[in-house]
Amino acid sequence: MRARNLAVVLDAIHRTGPHTRAALAERTGLTKTTVSSLVADLLEAGVVAEGGAVRGGERGRPGVAVGLSGHRVATLGLEVNIDYLAACVVDLTRAVRLRRTRPADNRNSDPAEILGRLRALAQEITAEAEAGGLRVMGAALAVPGTVEDTGAGGLLRSAPHLGWRDVRVEEPAGDLPFAIDNEANLAALGELWFGSREPDFLYVSGEIGIGAGLVVGGTLFRGTFGLAGELGHVVVVPDGPGCRCGGRGCLEVYAGQDALLGPLESVTALVERLEAGEPRALETCERAGHALAVALTSAVHLLDPGRIVLGGVFAPLFPWLEGPVADGLGTRLAQMRGAPPPLVVSGTGPDAAVLGAAGLVIQRILADPAQALGL
Amino acid sequence: MRARNLAVVLDAIHRTGPHTRAALAERTGLTKTTVSSLVADLLEAGVVAEGGAVRGGERGRPGVAVGLSGHRVATLGLEVNIDYLAACVVDLTRAVRLRRTRPADNRNSDPAEILGRLRALAQEITAEAEAGGLRVMGAALAVPGTVEDTGAGGLLRSAPHLGWRDVRVEEPAGDLPFAIDNEANLAALGELWFGSREPDFLYVSGEIGIGAGLVVGGTLFRGTFGLAGELGHVVVVPDGPGCRCGGRGCLEVYAGQDALLGPLESVTALVERLEAGEPRALETCERAGHALAVALTSAVHLLDPGRIVLGGVFAPLFPWLEGPVADGLGTRLAQMRGAPPPLVVSGTGPDAAVLGAAGLVIQRILADPAQALGL
Repeated sequence: MRARNLAVVLDAIHRTGPHTRAALAERTGLTKTTVSSLVADLLEAGVVAEGGAVRGGERGRPGVAVGLSGHRVATLGLEVNIDYLAACVVDLTRAVRLRRTRPADNRNSDPAEILGRLRALAQEITAEAEAGGLRVMGAALAVPGTVEDTGAGGLLRSAPHLGWRDVRVEEPAGDLPFAIDNEANLAALGELWFGSREPDFLYVSGEIGIGAGLVVGGTLFRGTFGLAGELGHVVVVPDGPGCRCGGRGCLEVYAGQDALLGPLESVTALVERLEAGEPRALETCERAGHALAVALTSAVHLLDPGRIVLGGVFAPLFPWLEGPVADGLGTRLAQMRGAPPPLVVSGTGPDAAVLGAAGLVIQRILADPAQALGL
Repeated sequence: MRARNLAVVLDAIHRTGPHTRAALAERTGLTKTTVSSLVADLLEAGVVAEGGAVRGGERGRPGVAVGLSGHRVATLGLEVNIDYLAACVVDLTRAVRLRRTRPADNRNSDPAEILGRLRALAQEITAEAEAGGLRVMGAALAVPGTVEDTGAGGLLRSAPHLGWRDVRVEEPAGDLPFAIDNEANLAALGELWFGSREPDFLYVSGEIGIGAGLVVGGTLFRGTFGLAGELGHVVVVPDGPGCRCGGRGCLEVYAGQDALLGPLESVTALVERLEAGEPRALETCERAGHALAVALTSAVHLLDPGRIVLGGVFAPLFPWLEGPVADGLGTRLAQMRGAPPPLVVSGTGPDAAVLGAAGLVIQRILADPAQALGL
């Protein structure tokens, strides 16, 4: 009961706060004595902090407002992707306090070796956060593959681009509560909490693989087994070239990073050529845009997203992708839906997934502070 | 508070009943006096009935069990489809009490005329149900198109095969609570409540149009605007033949009823030819199966269903579709998912949507009996 009341009070502070204790009692229906005692615990744990005097509650007497504190509780976001490792520390107000990205070549790599490097990165950034007075209370890891969250640690079932299969991942930073999830799912949550904050969208994660995360009413849609949103393997051409998934003519074959770059070394190099108007680069982007329009047409018909957010490498390429994608969606969807969903560029940049990972742990702490913080 | 307690008690009776009043008090945490008073109201309204003596609750004293009653409260399911009108009456235990189907040609029809015929059918079947002692407490209508449920009545935004656009539909049977929803959504709910009763599946509704309804954990996924599951317009061949939706190469072009039948007059005629081994009929089914496999591959990647249920006209054609669909899914999906979702035939037959419509109203009554029945 106390645990539930702590969650109720923290939810009121988080969603509509700061509030005085009197206002919190009114909002939650709890007695002032109970609220004061709960707030004392939250203050002690560094979850909330007192601000200046405000007018509080119905009676209009001034009181001290209690708001979420960004000074103590923090979480760790981690990401293993195909060409980099990343970590970030986010505080309870979802302010990003630290970020680190390490370029890497993780294709067909040894999981133990890569997870060892991730552990070193996690310990380094955690130490830096704690030197600054933060306490890291949990961690989550984004991976470019399918995942089974087993509660204590997680099982990475298959990450074809890493060449990993059935890898058990232990919490890398020490002994924290730990979650593991698909990169596109967490990037969608990153967009929700750190990007546009719109409640309804399909986030399209363009990396070496292409994934997507659907958010409806602020909640991530995961499907039956947590495997929904594999946009990269939606069929664009039924008898097209083979894909490493075993299928044929998947979107990834036409619009994945490898298809976009060809012999180029980086997205930056591609953008330079696009800006210079190089015909081959323009043609590659146009072809990728047409394929994206076909796959997104199928996705809109099946998932019914509020808007489409292009992220990952699609963000810097947006000026060249927008035309063919919007045209394709318009032609194919206009008659059935009036207008296709708005097409926008992600505001979170390449950090979306690692931010979403840290944000996921924040969400869990806010949902059950008693359990998460041992109150 | 009384309304909530009525719902809590009815939920316990419905999910795990019949129960004695003592057992209900134990399960719900309400006092026996409160439970007795609530049960009295439910008995009076004909929602529950008393059965034989059973051992009740912890003390093991025999008591009278209270269970859901199928004798009084009923609901009306209605359907306007392209080639028929249908109606059914279902009682509170989800037993189907009456069904009627009227063949019709509703293509490019006048909404007022068709809705007039539907009203006659609704009044006829309601009168027959009431003559048998049932009281019809609400109605829902399945339509082959996109719908906006406006609370009081509904707005059919677009049903291309009917040729209807922005048609406001009033409750046809009299003055009952009324809902309107897409045919594939309601057919999926029909499969959930009157078919296999599995909690996780994608129901594929093969009619002149092809729709789908995804059920995850017993709940229908509707997307952002209630427009999810338009499987018929998933792109199979990006530059394929034009579809009446304005797109190209949609699944419906290859596997909709018109494509399957060609010059034949009915599915029965097609089945006869398939059974006789007629090459052209076999080839048509095989081509439809291949197209279905491509569209379902995209759907599995995006929606992650627990199983795939083929319904509508795909049910009688299942023996000929199963091979190409299962082969296609196996080849395209096996590597990423281990095995594709099981492919099964619907058990509800052509009545799935109209049953789902009646079931939807039952669900609303069970969720809030005080409001639905004026208790």
